[in-house]
Amino acid sequence: MAVRAGIVVTGTEVLTGRVADRNGPWLAEALRVIGVDVGSVVVVGDRPDDLRAALAFLAAGSDLVITSGGLGPTADDLTAAVVAEFQGRPPTLDAALEQRIAAVVERLTAARGWDTPPEAAAAGIAKQAQVPVGATVLEPVGTAPGLVVPVADGRTGPPVLVLPGPPSELQGMWPAAIGTDLVRRALGEATELRQSTLRLWGTPESELAATLRRVDDQLAGLEVTTCLRDGELEIVTRYAPEAEPAYARLAQAIRSGFADTLFSEGPTIDELVATALDERGWTMAVGEADTGGLLTARLTRPPGSSRRVLGGVVAYANSAKEELLDVPAAVLAEHGAVSPHVASLLAQGARERFGADVGVGVTGVAGPGGGTPEKPVGTLYLAIADPDTGSMASHRLRGDRDAIRQRTTTLVLQALREHLTSEPPT
Amino acid sequence: MAVRAGIVVTGTEVLTGRVADRNGPWLAEALRVIGVDVGSVVVVGDRPDDLRAALAFLAAGSDLVITSGGLGPTADDLTAAVVAEFQGRPPTLDAALEQRIAAVVERLTAARGWDTPPEAAAAGIAKQAQVPVGATVLEPVGTAPGLVVPVADGRTGPPVLVLPGPPSELQGMWPAAIGTDLVRRALGEATELRQSTLRLWGTPESELAATLRRVDDQLAGLEVTTCLRDGELEIVTRYAPEAEPAYARLAQAIRSGFADTLFSEGPTIDELVATALDERGWTMAVGEADTGGLLTARLTRPPGSSRRVLGGVVAYANSAKEELLDVPAAVLAEHGAVSPHVASLLAQGARERFGADVGVGVTGVAGPGGGTPEKPVGTLYLAIADPDTGSMASHRLRGDRDAIRQRTTTLVLQALREHLTSEPPT
Repeated sequence: MAVRAGIVVTGTEVLTGRVADRNGPWLAEALRVIGVDVGSVVVVGDRPDDLRAALAFLAAGSDLVITSGGLGPTADDLTAAVVAEFQGRPPTLDAALEQRIAAVVERLTAARGWDTPPEAAAAGIAKQAQVPVGATVLEPVGTAPGLVVPVADGRTGPPVLVLPGPPSELQGMWPAAIGTDLVRRALGEATELRQSTLRLWGTPESELAATLRRVDDQLAGLEVTTCLRDGELEIVTRYAPEAEPAYARLAQAIRSGFADTLFSEGPTIDELVATALDERGWTMAVGEADTGGLLTARLTRPPGSSRRVLGGVVAYANSAKEELLDVPAAVLAEHGAVSPHVASLLAQGARERFGADVGVGVTGVAGPGGGTPEKPVGTLYLAIADPDTGSMASHRLRGDRDAIRQRTTTLVLQALREHLTSEPPT
Repeated sequence: MAVRAGIVVTGTEVLTGRVADRNGPWLAEALRVIGVDVGSVVVVGDRPDDLRAALAFLAAGSDLVITSGGLGPTADDLTAAVVAEFQGRPPTLDAALEQRIAAVVERLTAARGWDTPPEAAAAGIAKQAQVPVGATVLEPVGTAPGLVVPVADGRTGPPVLVLPGPPSELQGMWPAAIGTDLVRRALGEATELRQSTLRLWGTPESELAATLRRVDDQLAGLEVTTCLRDGELEIVTRYAPEAEPAYARLAQAIRSGFADTLFSEGPTIDELVATALDERGWTMAVGEADTGGLLTARLTRPPGSSRRVLGGVVAYANSAKEELLDVPAAVLAEHGAVSPHVASLLAQGARERFGADVGVGVTGVAGPGGGTPEKPVGTLYLAIADPDTGSMASHRLRGDRDAIRQRTTTLVLQALREHLTSEPPT
């Protein structure tokens, strides 16, 4: 792990959480693939002093510093100017670049039917065409060009790679960025860095910790991190190729210690469920209540999911459960909408109405209102119906409304996996 | 903005993007409310050297440093030990705290039916009960206690507030944390920091930039940031109470310059749509195709949404459009599933099948497959049907599958707002 990069994400909207940062994690993974380790990601607002401080902090321990964001036409977009100053390379107008950006803006303005006053557009374009002396320009993917800015002659320090904030622009510019001479030289000695993942379902973190402590002296060269998320315990290990035997020992210790709960050596639960359905050639449909569409949205997220997911009904109101999924009013009256009986009927109703092989039904109390002493917030019933059989389970989850809705979708996917793998496809 | 805090978020799973950071943004907002400014959020992996470097970076410019995460029982949870060392206060076992944590763990183990070996649990508990000399303990919300660790006597530096990583535990501990003497003294001079938001729909960022440049000399004391998200242009301004007149001038400039596109001076589009429905006492239902449940999930996210949202059908397969929302097979055959005709029929079908006042229909090509020359990826038709009238719109979006699905939901909400506010409720 000799070669290291540091990342600065700019934007008060990111710092204050109005927008989730997608660039830091994306860059960290893109760098790992080419053998570059990331020590830290620093998020700063749109303030020159804070950006300068972050650049100084990262430059001290990195072979390359990468910034994302702050390249737009507005006054709070100040990254290029601050980096130019930090590296000691004054910005100058690149007239040819200005023309190329103007052409892009003109095309966008026409396509979107904007009536931006020409002088307003021109001021923004002139700002975006400022290039520090000696910097390499990366052609715009949107309107903003990227930059690779070396430190001024006679000083020492890593180059700064300046990338735009919109994730599609940043990702589109990445291949060109790592192909520049400046970046290649900075990352010259990077070697492969492997990453392997094991996933457990139902093992508490403390049990895993005990196992890891037992084999600790055999794990030299491995960076093991564990993470508990929606009940799944994820073990991610990063290592150089020469530590492969140590990783094999770790994996074996976990395989033998947690045979019952180790459900994956790589694929996510979403991928495992999709594969299990596809192996049988089965389609599925959903009848969901408190998850409000989240479960179907998760199942339809992967490209091509339409071949296995026919759809779902979000039966929020009882009338919808009756009319769209054939849950009898008498069952709702006797057992309540949140009950094992209704979960089973939602699964059967989804299966029949959509003509699917598998139906999933889920009903619960996501809160914050709606709980009762018998069925408090977090109560959850889920059912699965397939051509041969069915299954039902109940759970009690903790957390706020968002967390309960989210965790419910993971629980359903785990139940689906268990159901689908309990007997091999015929 | 005299009083400043710096935040360190620990965890390789956050650094590498396997888990999105929710704590940095939450803390930044919780601090703003009490008048404390955040300069930067640093995300580091589970490595002592990187955590130490981040603490040193933030301590230099902050009145308080806050850490989140790394307090669990596993070996990669090392925050408490590193902070103790950084502040020069050696950790010692707090036996009374150890007993309290043990009681919590015992209760959790019983409730969840784990069979953790007692010695495994004990090692984790002993680790979590290590308290730096002179630190204030914050009682656990989950199993991990928090800490406020002052710098060693005779040295200068801000105290470090050590909080657990699970958002519910961190948030639950926050009131106790800011009530401690150490934190109160550190933040003693904080004064109110206001934040106001204006939202535009359909104005390009460059036009807004031109207006801001025109009034730039009247904006002293305001920190204005703009952010374009799913087509919405959000203008957030932070200011001390004495800059209120400057903010009034800015708001007036935007109101007069963008009367057509300024749709909110605070509430989100989600809140505006909910209010518009509630003012009429109207219910709604959804018929969605390529958004796969995301639209209904977004509409059902707020607590209490069941009073206005009856449900939705995710009609992914054509058979589902026919069977569950009464779209005639002949229309699907003649115009295709992605067509204005089908969007209108999905809206009408949802309205009728759920017995709702308003029906929304949306169909499109989210990609990456499924595009044609006439209807490329990003093509979108949306329709609204209410008791009196209907409306239809088409759009062409850019971006990847996730972005198109997400942007579609925002477009639908904006269309709903326009539809519902085009005539006042009767």
